[in-house]
Amino acid sequence: MIDYNRSALELELESKTAAFIRDQIIPYEKDPRILSHGPSDELRCEMQAKAKVAGLLVPHLPQAYGGYGLNHRQTATVFRASGFSLLGPVAMNLMAPDEGNMYLLDQVGTPEQKAHFLRPLAAGEKRSAFFMTEPDGGAGSDPSLLATTARRDGNHWVISGRKWLITGAEGAGIGIVMAKTESAATLFLVDLPHHGVVTERVLNTIDRTMPGGHAVVRFDDVRVTPDQILGEVEGGFTAAQIRLAPARLTHCMRWWGAANRAHVIATDYAYHRQGFGKALIDHEGVGFMLADNEIDLHQAMLTIDHAAWQLDQHGPLRDDTAVSGRAKVAVSEALFRVADRSVQIMGGAGVTDDTPVQQIFRDTRAFRIYDGPSEVHRWSIAKRIKATYRAVHAGR
Amino acid sequence: MIDYNRSALELELESKTAAFIRDQIIPYEKDPRILSHGPSDELRCEMQAKAKVAGLLVPHLPQAYGGYGLNHRQTATVFRASGFSLLGPVAMNLMAPDEGNMYLLDQVGTPEQKAHFLRPLAAGEKRSAFFMTEPDGGAGSDPSLLATTARRDGNHWVISGRKWLITGAEGAGIGIVMAKTESAATLFLVDLPHHGVVTERVLNTIDRTMPGGHAVVRFDDVRVTPDQILGEVEGGFTAAQIRLAPARLTHCMRWWGAANRAHVIATDYAYHRQGFGKALIDHEGVGFMLADNEIDLHQAMLTIDHAAWQLDQHGPLRDDTAVSGRAKVAVSEALFRVADRSVQIMGGAGVTDDTPVQQIFRDTRAFRIYDGPSEVHRWSIAKRIKATYRAVHAGR
Amino acid sequence: MIDYNRSALELELESKTAAFIRDQIIPYEKDPRILSHGPSDELRCEMQAKAKVAGLLVPHLPQAYGGYGLNHRQTATVFRASGFSLLGPVAMNLMAPDEGNMYLLDQVGTPEQKAHFLRPLAAGEKRSAFFMTEPDGGAGSDPSLLATTARRDGNHWVISGRKWLITGAEGAGIGIVMAKTESAATLFLVDLPHHGVVTERVLNTIDRTMPGGHAVVRFDDVRVTPDQILGEVEGGFTAAQIRLAPARLTHCMRWWGAANRAHVIATDYAYHRQGFGKALIDHEGVGFMLADNEIDLHQAMLTIDHAAWQLDQHGPLRDDTAVSGRAKVAVSEALFRVADRSVQIMGGAGVTDDTPVQQIFRDTRAFRIYDGPSEVHRWSIAKRIKATYRAVHAGR
Amino acid sequence: MIDYNRSALELELESKTAAFIRDQIIPYEKDPRILSHGPSDELRCEMQAKAKVAGLLVPHLPQAYGGYGLNHRQTATVFRASGFSLLGPVAMNLMAPDEGNMYLLDQVGTPEQKAHFLRPLAAGEKRSAFFMTEPDGGAGSDPSLLATTARRDGNHWVISGRKWLITGAEGAGIGIVMAKTESAATLFLVDLPHHGVVTERVLNTIDRTMPGGHAVVRFDDVRVTPDQILGEVEGGFTAAQIRLAPARLTHCMRWWGAANRAHVIATDYAYHRQGFGKALIDHEGVGFMLADNEIDLHQAMLTIDHAAWQLDQHGPLRDDTAVSGRAKVAVSEALFRVADRSVQIMGGAGVTDDTPVQQIFRDTRAFRIYDGPSEVHRWSIAKRIKATYRAVHAGR
Repeated sequence: MIDYNRSALELELESKTAAFIRDQIIPYEKDPRILSHGPSDELRCEMQAKAKVAGLLVPHLPQAYGGYGLNHRQTATVFRASGFSLLGPVAMNLMAPDEGNMYLLDQVGTPEQKAHFLRPLAAGEKRSAFFMTEPDGGAGSDPSLLATTARRDGNHWVISGRKWLITGAEGAGIGIVMAKTESAATLFLVDLPHHGVVTERVLNTIDRTMPGGHAVVRFDDVRVTPDQILGEVEGGFTAAQIRLAPARLTHCMRWWGAANRAHVIATDYAYHRQGFGKALIDHEGVGFMLADNEIDLHQAMLTIDHAAWQLDQHGPLRDDTAVSGRAKVAVSEALFRVADRSVQIMGGAGVTDDTPVQQIFRDTRAFRIYDGPSEVHRWSIAKRIKATYRAVHAGR
Repeated sequence: MIDYNRSALELELESKTAAFIRDQIIPYEKDPRILSHGPSDELRCEMQAKAKVAGLLVPHLPQAYGGYGLNHRQTATVFRASGFSLLGPVAMNLMAPDEGNMYLLDQVGTPEQKAHFLRPLAAGEKRSAFFMTEPDGGAGSDPSLLATTARRDGNHWVISGRKWLITGAEGAGIGIVMAKTESAATLFLVDLPHHGVVTERVLNTIDRTMPGGHAVVRFDDVRVTPDQILGEVEGGFTAAQIRLAPARLTHCMRWWGAANRAHVIATDYAYHRQGFGKALIDHEGVGFMLADNEIDLHQAMLTIDHAAWQLDQHGPLRDDTAVSGRAKVAVSEALFRVADRSVQIMGGAGVTDDTPVQQIFRDTRAFRIYDGPSEVHRWSIAKRIKATYRAVHAGR
Repeated sequence: MIDYNRSALELELESKTAAFIRDQIIPYEKDPRILSHGPSDELRCEMQAKAKVAGLLVPHLPQAYGGYGLNHRQTATVFRASGFSLLGPVAMNLMAPDEGNMYLLDQVGTPEQKAHFLRPLAAGEKRSAFFMTEPDGGAGSDPSLLATTARRDGNHWVISGRKWLITGAEGAGIGIVMAKTESAATLFLVDLPHHGVVTERVLNTIDRTMPGGHAVVRFDDVRVTPDQILGEVEGGFTAAQIRLAPARLTHCMRWWGAANRAHVIATDYAYHRQGFGKALIDHEGVGFMLADNEIDLHQAMLTIDHAAWQLDQHGPLRDDTAVSGRAKVAVSEALFRVADRSVQIMGGAGVTDDTPVQQIFRDTRAFRIYDGPSEVHRWSIAKRIKATYRAVHAGR
Repeated sequence: MIDYNRSALELELESKTAAFIRDQIIPYEKDPRILSHGPSDELRCEMQAKAKVAGLLVPHLPQAYGGYGLNHRQTATVFRASGFSLLGPVAMNLMAPDEGNMYLLDQVGTPEQKAHFLRPLAAGEKRSAFFMTEPDGGAGSDPSLLATTARRDGNHWVISGRKWLITGAEGAGIGIVMAKTESAATLFLVDLPHHGVVTERVLNTIDRTMPGGHAVVRFDDVRVTPDQILGEVEGGFTAAQIRLAPARLTHCMRWWGAANRAHVIATDYAYHRQGFGKALIDHEGVGFMLADNEIDLHQAMLTIDHAAWQLDQHGPLRDDTAVSGRAKVAVSEALFRVADRSVQIMGGAGVTDDTPVQQIFRDTRAFRIYDGPSEVHRWSIAKRIKATYRAVHAGR
């Protein structure tokens, strides 16, 4: 029966997270160790140490890795709370791309791979990167264009190619690389740094929350052995699929928290700031924007919860109803509207970095593109609508 | 724990309703007895007789009145299915304003009032009207302006005033009238027709689904006795409140079904119609509109379900978080967008009455105003945001 | 040098038109002779007689036909004023499709055709129709699908086929028919009624301002002679093109007037109507909507004027920069927003036909589709952007 | 008579500017001397030297200052071309706030003030700042809240107070300061740096094109003499008014060029980048976005030209029809949409700084707030609609 009550565990984790973010992480938001692409490793480790003490490091992972074994739906509650500071997900070691990489390793990795790669990742000892997207017409929203190859050499493979917009590559200790083997894609695990994995440059992007930023990386004949294959040979697309839908949703969850923060700050500003004879919040034009923020946040939350619950029911490979894509479009566009209105409510103050609102606006802009631009998801939803129509009406 | 599974009962009612609408009601959609304000009484009774046979007359009401005793959340499932034809809610006797009036009578009426007023209403023997809104600056979105009075005369009251946009008044057998008594409002029940209750004129409105349309009605010294008081003397606002939140949501439910119908028709059209070298559905511009329709319908469904569930938890008087107002804004605007896109996809065919899409577009336009324009709800949400802020931050 | 001053002639015609509409035409707006598709012929003739007396019948046409010989840009000023009542364009004999047909006859017709067809049309003695659009995948937004044929028989042609959504066909005295001859389209003039031109049915559409409505018409072997060819044999697409761009713009002009009317009525309503303690116009939420109306109307006016001026410079066949399509999208969508906001501002009153606002809302909805849905124009603008890019960058 | 032809002079300046920006300024776009708030003084001077050689330094100013004496409307043509690079307005010495300050000095300054302040400003020897906006509830969108004071001391004045978001203050050689004298505001000219004018901090804002950024500045008893008064004593609001409307429009002009650049880059990208089997530009979803860009740019251009022409006709103090405010809302929101769509079309590449699109997106976001947020202008347009209504209808 339909029921929206949350479990005691997640409610407890939610309030612990909220307090942790408020009391221990927000004070770091002006820390000079926040570099142009997010917190430095030193700052990251310092915050993660506090999260560990608070029992909030990787809260979603199985207990074997220090977490509480949350399902996707419960994870949503905690991740939203973590996003209330843009530093929160890093502090709790549940930011992209590590969080998605941990999930994939847990689902698909061998015991040895889990021990060697997942364990230090979960402990915050290493960061990781997922090398899929390519430059210049290679794999991107359309993965079929994969140009990086792994050619067989005895029972080794040798990876060559270029990757683009690779989040966290700079400074990562672990890499998951997608390359074309015979006729399809295969995923490989590599220890980093590696002499053949060359960061050509780190891109400057509009967002600023992912340590290491987004880099262009070249693979110069990187040799890998069979035990470095993650999942099946030629099974790279399927394995990536396992990662894709959940990773899309966890982006929604974390940035929901950020948009909520923007709304809270804008409300506070509107409550105190006077203009044209009264507090801004008493101007209908401002009040309506706050109301729309609340409506957008509320609907985004319902959409995330529902999509996460469906993922729990069917698993990441049964996303045949395009649930996660639909959620990604709706949520990313709603959160951007919230951030945009919050900037607008704050006027000049909204475009300075005196509050995090300006950065949240920039991050949510990028979010409308990361993990597939809205247009790619709309295209794929439309394709499914057509296929469903044909299936239903073929027999009539 | 959060769970989106529906009960077996509602799923069964949903599929029975879908079949009933498709097989027995849609064939009536071109019936000449559909007048400018909706089906004639003859047609209404004919359809309701079929619904009774199908076990689908007032499915939501308690079993004592022929229903299945559904809660608000379960009601949502069935009402959405009923709305798939604009005639559906009339056929199943769950259209506005009768459905809201039945709910109010069931919640607040005395046993005698239920026997005399609710029973024939539930059976479809009579229609009813709710006389609240007033012309010329009287009670409307702002009920405090109530100008109709009920002056005391011994232990009787005598009602005088004018009411405006009163749905279903023309042809109603039962009226619930809001009038100012001493210092506040009181609700009165009246049998109709009554020589002192004069329909001045029936308005022509853009919608066309509510039998009797919307009328301007004059009360010329209408004398009522104490047993005609519904609820408490001076308790009219509270009693109206009991009706308001649920009635707003059932509007969302029924028109969700209508918007879904528009989407289904537009999909069918886009699948078959060729233009510029391929089926319309294969044009991205059209496919994106269908995708947005689906996203809007999905989010509207989630929003309705959640608001109905909250109503079940807290009751209609604890709508202090403005849940129903928030849902009304979000859902009515989403459904209008769906109807608008469906018209657009169909081009010239979309603006003719060859399909119901054109009328659904018109109805959902009115819906953005009925039961409170979006702006009134945004205003009230903003007020609550401010009050909440003050409450939370007063102590810091 | 850029100059926005209007000529004395058009300013005089504008103010005469404004007074004529206000004093002589608006009083007809509740006339019972306004049928479901617009004014009856009796009412039309009565109003046109008054326009003739006022010197305002076909003001844009050459003096030979009773007008002032306005160019497109000057026409815009007068047509906008005429549209202030939905009856205005009919009263002044400048409504669609007659206005476009007169233009085409004037540009392309032989002296004999002008005497026989254009003269009675300009005098309001006859109405006309333009038979281009077809049902079921025939010519519509994509004219290449033309299915109606005119087969040669000696030096006659025999027209067969079906046409759809033909404005004004019912009751027309003159028809311009597009049919496929050998390999391309040819336009033919026919006197109506004609035994072989059969109105299958008149569609019920959401708009209500075009006398005769929009019909489905069958051509049963309609025999025509060489003197009935309008323009060149096989030159039908070019000739239609001459009509198309100006007709699109005159739609913009007339409906601009209607949207302006809606805005004026909504302003008046907001000024007088009280709600929540003050006049609606003093609520920012309402004031912002009025401001947006004004911005939309202003930009739509600038866009119309500029496109009309370009038409004057280059002629209707040099619309290679898609000027009229761009204007049509921008203006039709802006006017719809104005009408939609005006309805919303007026609340319940906005959805009744107590004022013309509700009908203006419906007409502007149809306008987003008539003469090409926005999507078709966007598609064609995008094609031109690509072609221009290629042309500019091919040589670099 | 309405005429959209541009003068030979402005067309020549437009094409010279286009070539100058393309050939000499765009190559600087990756120059390391572009600091976090825009070009360093060294880079600025280097570019301005080139502009001088090209005859394109302060092209709009009177010939006495090295320009061509353009009116507002002609200025629009040249400024739009200058904005094609975000560096262009700086290179041509027509960026904010200097351009507005020069205009004000030229309109209001004494001969001595022009010689001392305007001449070096026009020559690019100095930069300037306009000290109006204040922190913490002081003068902002609502100038009546002015808190900075200039108290009389003999025939001197002594200025004390704090200013906020003061563009270009850091590094400026000239300041125009608004302070409250007796009962109203007065403008004062000051040479900078000045020991009593203390930059408390430079804000980090989302935009990056105005040298010196936006600072918080304190005035510690800054003593000024009568010859430093700009305009009349107590005439500061009027004088500021002279600057306000034109400055708002020149923002529109310059950022129009930037948005046009974003559109051109996005078109180029869409033309070359493949995805899902064809060039992006051949995807309708992308083509529609480009079409909407073109429509927005076209309407914005018409709106700017018309508002500038009105300014030429009536002067800056007769902006009683809120022309510049209406233009500012329409144009800033249109340009932001163009920038936003351009980012979206480019996907991941759109959020990196590999092209200027990302920065244009950020700048146009700030533009929706600078010189009055859209909401303040809507509020003021609504007030005027009401006043106009009252004036027109009072007598009826």
